[in-house]
Amino acid sequence: MGKTVVIKRAIASDVRFKLNDGAGSDAIHTTPIYAYAVCKLQTDQNMEGIGLAFTLGMGNNLVCQAIEHLTKHVENRDINELMANFGSTYKAMAEDPNYRWLGPHKGIVHLALASVVNACFDLWAKSRGLPLWKLLIDLPAQDIVNTLDLSYLEEVLTRDEAVAILSNNAITKHERTGILNTGYPGYDTSVGWFNYTDEKIKINVSKAIDAGFTAMKLKVGSKDIKRDIRRAKLVRETAGDKATIMLDANQQWHLSKAIEICNELKAINPYWVEEPTHPDDIAAHVTLAKEIAPIKLALGEHVPNKIIFKNFLQSGCMSFNQVDAVRVGGISEFITISLLSKKFGIPVVPHVGDMGQIHQHLVLFNHISIGHKALFLEHIPHLRQYFKYPARIIDGRYQIPQQPGMSADFV
Amino acid sequence: MGKTVVIKRAIASDVRFKLNDGAGSDAIHTTPIYAYAVCKLQTDQNMEGIGLAFTLGMGNNLVCQAIEHLTKHVENRDINELMANFGSTYKAMAEDPNYRWLGPHKGIVHLALASVVNACFDLWAKSRGLPLWKLLIDLPAQDIVNTLDLSYLEEVLTRDEAVAILSNNAITKHERTGILNTGYPGYDTSVGWFNYTDEKIKINVSKAIDAGFTAMKLKVGSKDIKRDIRRAKLVRETAGDKATIMLDANQQWHLSKAIEICNELKAINPYWVEEPTHPDDIAAHVTLAKEIAPIKLALGEHVPNKIIFKNFLQSGCMSFNQVDAVRVGGISEFITISLLSKKFGIPVVPHVGDMGQIHQHLVLFNHISIGHKALFLEHIPHLRQYFKYPARIIDGRYQIPQQPGMSADFV
Repeated sequence: MGKTVVIKRAIASDVRFKLNDGAGSDAIHTTPIYAYAVCKLQTDQNMEGIGLAFTLGMGNNLVCQAIEHLTKHVENRDINELMANFGSTYKAMAEDPNYRWLGPHKGIVHLALASVVNACFDLWAKSRGLPLWKLLIDLPAQDIVNTLDLSYLEEVLTRDEAVAILSNNAITKHERTGILNTGYPGYDTSVGWFNYTDEKIKINVSKAIDAGFTAMKLKVGSKDIKRDIRRAKLVRETAGDKATIMLDANQQWHLSKAIEICNELKAINPYWVEEPTHPDDIAAHVTLAKEIAPIKLALGEHVPNKIIFKNFLQSGCMSFNQVDAVRVGGISEFITISLLSKKFGIPVVPHVGDMGQIHQHLVLFNHISIGHKALFLEHIPHLRQYFKYPARIIDGRYQIPQQPGMSADFV
Repeated sequence: MGKTVVIKRAIASDVRFKLNDGAGSDAIHTTPIYAYAVCKLQTDQNMEGIGLAFTLGMGNNLVCQAIEHLTKHVENRDINELMANFGSTYKAMAEDPNYRWLGPHKGIVHLALASVVNACFDLWAKSRGLPLWKLLIDLPAQDIVNTLDLSYLEEVLTRDEAVAILSNNAITKHERTGILNTGYPGYDTSVGWFNYTDEKIKINVSKAIDAGFTAMKLKVGSKDIKRDIRRAKLVRETAGDKATIMLDANQQWHLSKAIEICNELKAINPYWVEEPTHPDDIAAHVTLAKEIAPIKLALGEHVPNKIIFKNFLQSGCMSFNQVDAVRVGGISEFITISLLSKKFGIPVVPHVGDMGQIHQHLVLFNHISIGHKALFLEHIPHLRQYFKYPARIIDGRYQIPQQPGMSADFV
């Protein structure tokens, strides 16, 4: 057990960062702002928990107000006592009567939940003096599952099955801890933002390769199909045949257009196509996945909760699970969804609304404790100057964070 | 064309009503407050548009703040010019860059959209001096479809098909306008709120029958299965074999529990079971519908948008579509979903977060212009004292509203 650390006061703050020169732009968001609805848990000790939910600026203040409503569930609690049975507190927050009408389990109230939950996990790790990944990989299976709410998943993932996945992987854990020496690959999302010129993309691809990246992403979803095709070919030609190239359409295509364009994009052999159409449209993704095989779909950036992830996994259309711990209900729901994804044999490759700060820990946990091979993790460097301990990438590989907590502290 | 009426100023207001003695209680919401995030569109004329989104109190202020963000899309517009091509404004609001991250198309931002959209329709009808139903049933098919955004529905409902549904029904419209003389049945939701005693339910059922209702609803979803069964039998015994009885579980059952209980509830021959499990869980509803046939499922109260309705309809599990115009993106998306539902042959029986004030108009439009037979409409009387023109029910039947607008004005 860790020492007694009591949450005395919760503060929400609205933190926004302007991006420059087309950075962060995609087919929907032409002038994005990156923003965090931050939950800060002050304690009776010299430490505080920092939680994040990610937004694109507008309405970030509404998420902050929702955070202030939810934190009453954790105030005056000792963090270790709280986390020993966190699943019940998670459920109480997610099911907060009357408030859940505003979701349920989606939208602003769920983003707020993410921030509060993440702050609790951060504080828990800090109270033990451990980086989050280290805390999580050393916890007994039962203790991990005690932090989860498995409601409405019973027909595909019982509590016993969740414990069994973790217990069975614990037996072979030593086979996978080598990652703590080697780190694991990042992939570069910043070569091809939507508003970048062709020339800039070409330069960025070369820079990425020089920096050790072997995988990178291009934003597509233009109204002009030819622009998408031209730029995809440009990235392939510049990066070479061996590079791993992903394409992200940011939901811009309706079904028949998605089929048409994806079939044209086969020419550049993409590793995946991401968010081709509306993120709620499971049936369209099922049709699309069949029509464009062998192209695979990466989905989940805008999927808000475990129930919809369950349905996507059951449907068979999702080849890469891009759950984001600053979109779903924080680390607790992220782990739940990772266990579900393991059950269905689908790899987890998170979207990083947190710029990878938290997810760099969760990839290690998923790799070591759940047996989700760490394929690679998205890397976006635009906010690194603002984090106290920014993720470190050397030769295209994420290094292992060593500071206590989950690396979400700001400078 | 109507006269020129320019929207000069939009105001959001947070209106909450306390309910007494267990009214409105269900398995989740034991002490509900009924609240509206109201969008008021002031004009250069002596009239204003009133829009509503419904919540259960907590966080209603957040919806109001989101309304204030969206109304910039309609300010300084002439209402008739705006509504002539409202689909494009609807889309601009639903896709507002950066803001859509907070949904997309769900949660607080989408509730806010509902309120703004509804205010526009209300003002449109008032500008013509017509009750909303009269405005809508007399509009040419093209004009109706111009108010809709059919994005992401192309594979099941093209613009041409939407126009065709309305045009074909216009030909036989005269066969269905008799409803304007007879009204149509209401069903009584207030006989069996969750916290009511068995004795009170028994009295309420008798009162409902005396008042001319032949259909009524009981709240179930208790942790104690026997309580649900006992009360369902009580309603059946009191109401008699001919009464139409619906059961509403308010999402309380996981799949296997839902199967078990619904099979026990067959004994009382329910007309439908409503929201048996998590409202996002299409796959679970598909399994459930098969397992409990011939019991039918009524779904949609918490379904936020046309995409998820499309998936529910495609899945075949939904027997009654309970779309609510104060949950989805207002009357525009309600009509879109009604057209979709017509395409799939599924009746629309709205949930009435608006206490039926707006939906009494939409049922008439659906019946006359889309050919959705008006089965009945939910009736909840608890707020009637607060509305300027409360819905009138005589002998269990909704009467036809005659005042200009959509009956959402408060006293």
